Amino acid sequence: MQKGLLIVLSGPSGTGKGTVCQEFCSRQPRLYQSISITTRPPREGEVDGVHYRFLSESEFTRLRKAGALLEWAEVYGNFYGTPREEVENARSRGLDVLLEIDTQGAMQLQKTVEDGVFIFLLPPSMVTLWQRISGRGTDSPQVIKQRYAAAYQELHRVWQYDYVVVNQDGQLDYAVERLEAILAAEKCKVKHHREFLQQLFKEGETIDLSLH
Amino acid sequence: MQKGLLIVLSGPSGTGKGTVCQEFCSRQPRLYQSISITTRPPREGEVDGVHYRFLSESEFTRLRKAGALLEWAEVYGNFYGTPREEVENARSRGLDVLLEIDTQGAMQLQKTVEDGVFIFLLPPSMVTLWQRISGRGTDSPQVIKQRYAAAYQELHRVWQYDYVVVNQDGQLDYAVERLEAILAAEKCKVKHHREFLQQLFKEGETIDLSLH
Repeated sequence: MQKGLLIVLSGPSGTGKGTVCQEFCSRQPRLYQSISITTRPPREGEVDGVHYRFLSESEFTRLRKAGALLEWAEVYGNFYGTPREEVENARSRGLDVLLEIDTQGAMQLQKTVEDGVFIFLLPPSMVTLWQRISGRGTDSPQVIKQRYAAAYQELHRVWQYDYVVVNQDGQLDYAVERLEAILAAEKCKVKHHREFLQQLFKEGETIDLSLH
Repeated sequence: MQKGLLIVLSGPSGTGKGTVCQEFCSRQPRLYQSISITTRPPREGEVDGVHYRFLSESEFTRLRKAGALLEWAEVYGNFYGTPREEVENARSRGLDVLLEIDTQGAMQLQKTVEDGVFIFLLPPSMVTLWQRISGRGTDSPQVIKQRYAAAYQELHRVWQYDYVVVNQDGQLDYAVERLEAILAAEKCKVKHHREFLQQLFKEGETIDLSLH
C-alpha cells in the first residue's frame, strides 16, 4: 500500500486556517487531520480531543523528552505539538495526514521529514488580515497589535514553503479546491510511483513478442 | 501579468497522448497547445497547421540553425521541433503552453528551460501498451516490434519527469483531471507569487496600527 502524504498547512493568525482545514477534510475522506496537543487552557467552545488535546506542561515535557512529538513549538508561553505515532500510523495505513501547525513547527518538520508538502495560507491583503485579527472583539488593542506584528513576522517564512493559497473572504471553495489540486498533484509525483514503475518495467521485459 | 507555465507532456507511442492533450485543452481555455513542426509526410487525415506544421528538411535545418527551435528531435529518420517564438509569446501573454513532445525533446528542455513542468503519460500495463501499438492495424509485425521496443526504452526516461499520469482505457476523465490538478497546483507554487508576496509585505509595513 502506498504511504499517505504529509500535508502541512500553516498561515498566520487571521488567515482562516481552521475553517479551510475543516472543509478540506470534510471533502477528502482519506485525509486524516492530526489533533495537536497543547498546554494552553481551552477557549470557550473548544472540546478536548476535537480541537486540541489539552495537557499539563509536565505531561507535554514528558512526551517531548521521550521523542514522542513530531514537532513542537512555544507560542505566547504555551506549548503545542504533534504526536508522532498517530501520524505515522495513519500514513502507513495509506491515509494522507493534514497538520495545521504554526511556522515554527513547520520549519522543524522541514528538517526531519523528507516528504512533507508545505502549504502556506495567505490573506488577500494585509488590511484584511488586520481586520480579521482585530475583528474578533475579544482582545485588547495591545493584544491585537502584538498578534498583527507576529502574523506579519510569520508571513516572511512563506519562502520556505512549497505552495501558497490565498483565502479570500467568501471564497472558501476557491481555497479548498486549490488544496485538493495540490493533494492530487502531489500524488502524481514520480517518486510516489516507484513500485508501479518497477512492476511495469518488469512486465515489459517478459512480454514475448513472438507470441502475438 | 504572471507568465504562463510551460507544461511538457511525453509518453511512449500507445499511451494516448493526443487524445488526452486534446481533451485537456478543450477544458482549459487559457491553455495553448503549441503545434510542432515536422519533416515527416502527413498521414491520412492530418492537416497542416492543425496536427503539425509540415516542413521540408532544408526549412527545418534553417530554423534549427537559426536557434528558432526550443527543442528538436529525430525519430525514425524524421525531424520534429517546437518553434521558440510562438511558445514565448504565448507565455508572456499569460497563457499556459502545452507541449506534446517525445522524451528526447523533453530532455533537451530540462536543460534549457528552468521552469518547465514535466509530465509522463503511462499505460496501465505493458500488455495494454502492446495491444494499443499493435491494434492500429496499419503496421507490419516488424514495425510493431520496433515501436514496442522503442516505447519500452522511452519508459525508462520517466525518472527524469516531475509527474506521472496513468491513462486507463475508458478513463480519459481520470487522466485529464490529474493534468488539471497538476496545472492548478503548479500555479500555487511559492515561486510564482513573488510579486504578490512582495506587495503584501510592503502593504504590511505601511499599516499604521495607531489609526485603527
